[in-house]
Amino acid sequence: MLIDVNVDMGESFGRWALGDDAGMMPYISSASIACGFHAGDPATMRRTVQYAVQHGVQIGAHVALPDLLGFGRRRMAVDPAELRDYVTYQIGALSAFVRAEGGTLAHVKPHGALYVMCSADAQLAEAVIRAVAEVDAGLILLLLNDDHRDLAREHGVRLVNEAFVDLHYDRDGALILERVKQAWDPVLVGERAARLVKEHRIRTVDGGDIETDAPTFCLHGDAPNAVDVARTVRERLSQEGITIMPLRDVLRQRDSVHA
Amino acid sequence: MLIDVNVDMGESFGRWALGDDAGMMPYISSASIACGFHAGDPATMRRTVQYAVQHGVQIGAHVALPDLLGFGRRRMAVDPAELRDYVTYQIGALSAFVRAEGGTLAHVKPHGALYVMCSADAQLAEAVIRAVAEVDAGLILLLLNDDHRDLAREHGVRLVNEAFVDLHYDRDGALILERVKQAWDPVLVGERAARLVKEHRIRTVDGGDIETDAPTFCLHGDAPNAVDVARTVRERLSQEGITIMPLRDVLRQRDSVHA
Amino acid sequence: MLIDVNVDMGESFGRWALGDDAGMMPYISSASIACGFHAGDPATMRRTVQYAVQHGVQIGAHVALPDLLGFGRRRMAVDPAELRDYVTYQIGALSAFVRAEGGTLAHVKPHGALYVMCSADAQLAEAVIRAVAEVDAGLILLLLNDDHRDLAREHGVRLVNEAFVDLHYDRDGALILERVKQAWDPVLVGERAARLVKEHRIRTVDGGDIETDAPTFCLHGDAPNAVDVARTVRERLSQEGITIMPLRDVLRQRDSVHA
Amino acid sequence: MLIDVNVDMGESFGRWALGDDAGMMPYISSASIACGFHAGDPATMRRTVQYAVQHGVQIGAHVALPDLLGFGRRRMAVDPAELRDYVTYQIGALSAFVRAEGGTLAHVKPHGALYVMCSADAQLAEAVIRAVAEVDAGLILLLLNDDHRDLAREHGVRLVNEAFVDLHYDRDGALILERVKQAWDPVLVGERAARLVKEHRIRTVDGGDIETDAPTFCLHGDAPNAVDVARTVRERLSQEGITIMPLRDVLRQRDSVHA
Repeated sequence: MLIDVNVDMGESFGRWALGDDAGMMPYISSASIACGFHAGDPATMRRTVQYAVQHGVQIGAHVALPDLLGFGRRRMAVDPAELRDYVTYQIGALSAFVRAEGGTLAHVKPHGALYVMCSADAQLAEAVIRAVAEVDAGLILLLLNDDHRDLAREHGVRLVNEAFVDLHYDRDGALILERVKQAWDPVLVGERAARLVKEHRIRTVDGGDIETDAPTFCLHGDAPNAVDVARTVRERLSQEGITIMPLRDVLRQRDSVHA
Repeated sequence: MLIDVNVDMGESFGRWALGDDAGMMPYISSASIACGFHAGDPATMRRTVQYAVQHGVQIGAHVALPDLLGFGRRRMAVDPAELRDYVTYQIGALSAFVRAEGGTLAHVKPHGALYVMCSADAQLAEAVIRAVAEVDAGLILLLLNDDHRDLAREHGVRLVNEAFVDLHYDRDGALILERVKQAWDPVLVGERAARLVKEHRIRTVDGGDIETDAPTFCLHGDAPNAVDVARTVRERLSQEGITIMPLRDVLRQRDSVHA
Repeated sequence: MLIDVNVDMGESFGRWALGDDAGMMPYISSASIACGFHAGDPATMRRTVQYAVQHGVQIGAHVALPDLLGFGRRRMAVDPAELRDYVTYQIGALSAFVRAEGGTLAHVKPHGALYVMCSADAQLAEAVIRAVAEVDAGLILLLLNDDHRDLAREHGVRLVNEAFVDLHYDRDGALILERVKQAWDPVLVGERAARLVKEHRIRTVDGGDIETDAPTFCLHGDAPNAVDVARTVRERLSQEGITIMPLRDVLRQRDSVHA
Repeated sequence: MLIDVNVDMGESFGRWALGDDAGMMPYISSASIACGFHAGDPATMRRTVQYAVQHGVQIGAHVALPDLLGFGRRRMAVDPAELRDYVTYQIGALSAFVRAEGGTLAHVKPHGALYVMCSADAQLAEAVIRAVAEVDAGLILLLLNDDHRDLAREHGVRLVNEAFVDLHYDRDGALILERVKQAWDPVLVGERAARLVKEHRIRTVDGGDIETDAPTFCLHGDAPNAVDVARTVRERLSQEGITIMPLRDVLRQRDSVHA
């Protein structure tokens, strides 16, 4: 039993600190790092990349809408062409820090409203996919579901669906975003994480279940108790005999089993 | 007789157009493209890179202070560490477009106030040099003079000094920046360019001369008559038997002569 | 026959000029001045206010979504509370320049996507109305139609519907926004303006007509031929015996007739 | 013995919280509220104004350089004309919230690097003074010293010098800014505050003393222990029989004594 635990990181900006990235690193296997559009600034990006490299944590670009004031959590009517350019820009900016610090960029994940928009809209998803393909088709793309998996494959990009254990799903499997991430009970999050890996299921708000074979789940680094949650989740998974490892390694293992 | 003609480009932003980049391309050999800090946005960056690739024009990152409102032409008291991160970020962002469009990033040039600051301050120059070295030591760094050439060499970076034929120099050889670039007489600029290549001299405001062996000179794309200036300069250089070619080629030729 | 001609103005930003505000002033009676959210900056705001004061042109705040990169022409999912605060902020910022220059702020008009959103959504309209009422209930609010007129009246605000003679309406009377304003034939715009005042009708894209008693119509200052359009419209209206005057004066005249 | 305790407030931005403004309010008499240039956003501005009105705390505009990323703590080479416009804009924006919430704007205080720049440079000081005079000459202007008092008086503005009890002064009486405000020992700050009021003296880093009759001193709201500091200072002043009251009241009392 293998799983990747990915966390949104590098969400400070200038004078404003958000999240305890250094404190989270020991408990996770992948970091999706803000690229300056919803959060993050050059100094924060470098520091967060350094943390990730030090801890052997996989690095991804957490690409977002250009909305610092709204933290990328408000929908904006961007068109596919401009979205593609936004994604190219952000991947590039983070890539330079990864290169400078001797790491490897491994994945791309849309943030906040863009994540929800892309998961539902094939044109926007394709814009992101094209941006990824043009810069480095080896990058893994994370989205909520695998609706656009074939589309990604046409562009040579591997799309991986992701689960959330610290957010609510509605009965249709859509995420219910929180503008300001609330504290969740760490034990509950651990329980949801363990169930995800063992039973491939997540509970929805109406008591139903979503089935998913997601090789990774997300924890939010901007929750007030994010480190507690991450530690508790890791302990719980460990007790269940579940191994946490970076997404690309999880995928490699899965691929070799399926081969 | 060889020279590179480099032009600042991609300085539109969103709804606001500045400069006729497509119109300039036929007359120049290198483009320093704005990266979003003083000007430029993702769509503009891609479009400008496309133009450059189509015309075989060498591409560089025109890195700047984070001052959109001031167009990067106001000094800011940045410290070396944050400057280094700004440069890394901007080089990375532009690199992604260059890669997506099948081009090659070849040089880095600080813009506006940062250019003046780096040319005079070794600590700031070293910050830029380090950022360049970490991302790709093969990138050529352009500065006003060669005061920091040995410093750059220590980091494995080639620093090239650059001349300006559409700005004034004071008697000490310092540039006199214009907050809003004024139209200069194209014939005068052509004259200054020809003299630079043939006599290695530029006139200062007090009637003296600066001696320089700069392998490249800059024209401003945001002058109101920028295309006229570029065309006239090219014609004049051509009449003088001077060949315009991308900076890296000029350097290669010079190196082979010196070898 | 009276009409107010209002124009969006002050849409330059830093190094980037847009529109010929000084050139437009002689032909119009009201200026809606950008407040820094979609366009405009402090220096531009002061200069535009000065022009308006010099020409006796009525001044309004052209309030917008916080989207400089998109020029406020992209929908954003703002909630009513944050929208109200955005409007308060922008009205205040412009008011200070108006006060400093000895003018009077007379109206408020949402810009671009916000205009369309407010004209259709009562909650967003109420957010704007509340912001206006709290700062100065004497300010006139311009929207596309008078759907929210009663709502405005409850808050003590006068809502006035406005017509557009340089944009297309669809068959339902909704505006078709242009991300980058195109040049329209000045004679056609003059024709539409004259018909609006004389017949209270505007042609839609499908050849139908919208009936409107709007006391004001808008011209876009960011069209490439904006000054030509404004001059032609003024000449045409003059030939028709139509008097152009500031909106508050048009309303006063209408009110006195109705009284 | 009377003194005003003024605190920098409203320095959150979007998703990022900074300072405990609600927690500070009971202990202070004046709030200098960020206006969106170095910190603050429309929602934060309204909320902070509401707190101040509820607590009878005097409200001022904390005007700054346009440098969100650097929190207004980096010098920028702004010219007097653009600075004046920045100040006008910010005063106006805050004024609208004050008006909407039924309060009164009473003072203006430059923030961070602008504060230091204005205190030393008469041209920049005059730019701020003019902006204040044009919007409302009744606003009190706070600066580090009274070097520009006569200049302010010429424009009809009252300039008041201010002391700092949670920052270091160098031997020449210049402030030593902290890019990120550090925690200071609350007892020490209380001691410095008491000495300021009773002996009109503040200790410098080299053990000397600055003499000052400042009617107000500043505490930083972005220190990690800001509420502890404010509470301790208030208790200490109370024990010394010193009354804390809003600056305009302190001035009125002083004026009546001198009359």
